Amino acid sequence: MAKAVLPILTNRADTLKYEAGVVQVLDRRKLPEQIIFVPCRTYEEVAQAIVDMVIQGGPPLAYAAGYGLALAARQFRDLKGDAFKAALGEAHRRLRSTRPTAGDIFPLMDNGLTLACRAIDEGRDAEAQLVAYVDGHVRAGDRAARLSGRHASDLLQSGDRILTHCFAGAALNYMLYYAVEADKQIELICTETRPYLQGARLTAAQAKEIGVPVTLVTDNMPGYLFYRGMITKYVTAADSISLDGHISNKIGTFQYAVLAHQFGVPFIVLGYDGPDPERPDAASIPIEERNPEEIFYCRGVRTAAEGIRGYYPAFDITPPQFVSVIATERGLFSPWHISQYFRAPEPAE
Amino acid sequence: MAKAVLPILTNRADTLKYEAGVVQVLDRRKLPEQIIFVPCRTYEEVAQAIVDMVIQGGPPLAYAAGYGLALAARQFRDLKGDAFKAALGEAHRRLRSTRPTAGDIFPLMDNGLTLACRAIDEGRDAEAQLVAYVDGHVRAGDRAARLSGRHASDLLQSGDRILTHCFAGAALNYMLYYAVEADKQIELICTETRPYLQGARLTAAQAKEIGVPVTLVTDNMPGYLFYRGMITKYVTAADSISLDGHISNKIGTFQYAVLAHQFGVPFIVLGYDGPDPERPDAASIPIEERNPEEIFYCRGVRTAAEGIRGYYPAFDITPPQFVSVIATERGLFSPWHISQYFRAPEPAE
Repeated sequence: MAKAVLPILTNRADTLKYEAGVVQVLDRRKLPEQIIFVPCRTYEEVAQAIVDMVIQGGPPLAYAAGYGLALAARQFRDLKGDAFKAALGEAHRRLRSTRPTAGDIFPLMDNGLTLACRAIDEGRDAEAQLVAYVDGHVRAGDRAARLSGRHASDLLQSGDRILTHCFAGAALNYMLYYAVEADKQIELICTETRPYLQGARLTAAQAKEIGVPVTLVTDNMPGYLFYRGMITKYVTAADSISLDGHISNKIGTFQYAVLAHQFGVPFIVLGYDGPDPERPDAASIPIEERNPEEIFYCRGVRTAAEGIRGYYPAFDITPPQFVSVIATERGLFSPWHISQYFRAPEPAE
Repeated sequence: MAKAVLPILTNRADTLKYEAGVVQVLDRRKLPEQIIFVPCRTYEEVAQAIVDMVIQGGPPLAYAAGYGLALAARQFRDLKGDAFKAALGEAHRRLRSTRPTAGDIFPLMDNGLTLACRAIDEGRDAEAQLVAYVDGHVRAGDRAARLSGRHASDLLQSGDRILTHCFAGAALNYMLYYAVEADKQIELICTETRPYLQGARLTAAQAKEIGVPVTLVTDNMPGYLFYRGMITKYVTAADSISLDGHISNKIGTFQYAVLAHQFGVPFIVLGYDGPDPERPDAASIPIEERNPEEIFYCRGVRTAAEGIRGYYPAFDITPPQFVSVIATERGLFSPWHISQYFRAPEPAE
């Protein structure tokens, strides 16, 4: 049996730590060249790290925000009752408004605030309660990533050449890991994913470490690869899945989904812990538009002419007709019946 | 009436000059920040400038190769008869093999060699003959660009938001120029076009100078813009057009053509002087595959993880079902009857 390894972006506790008074966040912008943690000592520093993309991906940034709330509980621990709750409410508002598209952050933050306020009312340690609460979410998230990746790997066959876009997170690592463990001969083709190059840096490095041959292309090349029959599967994550089967993910996901559909290539979405119960349809998924200045540079070097405008939608929406299957913790779903996720049995382990 | 200007990449004689013993080539890689000419003093230097993308685009690089042959005629002018012809044949072979996809270079070089050999046989000045011959091609190419752009501009309306990819050359400048002169309110959206960023640098700067509002996006964004109804026309050049209506152009052209078709947006190809008579179909258009190392960098800065593979096809093929109209010097053609270009009357002027 082949031996695969699990690289650093697999278990979230390896990249995000709550140490008394400090949230340590692995700087994904520096990977794979450097393993550097950014120490955040206030909730505002955590919020800024999320905005600045030190940490990325729906679940990881939600966990970071959760630890940020625990940090706020520590910062304001000398306050009493309503004053303490008001200060936490302000931290909650700030952390919750960092990135709008991925759905994980909202229930995690809202339930975290409720929990903390109850702890304050009952005279218990709000910081400790929040840390334990987020720790539990991290463990549950790791399990969702592992099972989602395992279900997706069941769909892979030897000979598959898999296109992926951006970095699909821990579930992608698990999918590749289980495929290698099962001796499936697969290859990964990753787009570089401008402007932050998650594909060229994170995905490429992780896949290589797992032991999957990886080929990089720029974001304008997948169409030609489909045309030449060089792609047999298309796999991405989803920052948000609506109950009617629309998925939101890194900008570009949609255009490659249209091409996959045009060429009869299945599009497998790594769905982690399923759809967002609060989001019935595409209209309920806000698309983050970031500062256009960010697309005028590449790794700090100016790439664009001066005096022009830019437009930087960070995510896009793929309608269900372009999605073949969503691989979740609770098994495989068509996008057309993803709302039944909540009726599916929870996995035994 | 609005006043438009014609920027530097419009008239080819402004960017490519034959001065006794030197071919001066404007370095497009340095635009728009710097106007720098690379002086080539041997045909090998011209060939290398073409390979290194100092000059780009089917017609311009063909003219550069033509002047390179004139330079060879100067280099070898002390040789006689067959020895002179053999040396020129070697230069012809080298210059002709620089870039395979665009079709312009091949007949220009072949006819240039024939002309030079005849001049040698007849005791005339081969260098002077070649320079005059290439000068004539430059003038004819400028006319083709202007008329092709004018025919395309007739298809534009106020309110159009035009997606373009890479830099579509002088015909794009003319298309925008005539639209502005006709007081049409149009906007241009250009893709950055990795790895060489022709869109972010050349197209964006030229359009701005002409007076057309321009918005830059990265290569993974057009799909979302189509989805949101933000694009009304799609316009590119073609490095090669086969007689059965396939077009080859900068990698990425095809994937945006599929999206335009999916969303009912017309795709206008700037066809300059028409199809390549020697290329009956898609199979007869070779796709240049460049060194994958080139996609691991952006403006000299490493962007990719180490130890991975890359794949860099520099062009792709768009079949006729995804092309709406080809705007040539001799008027507008559907891709399905582009072979009739040769039966169409030459323009009067």
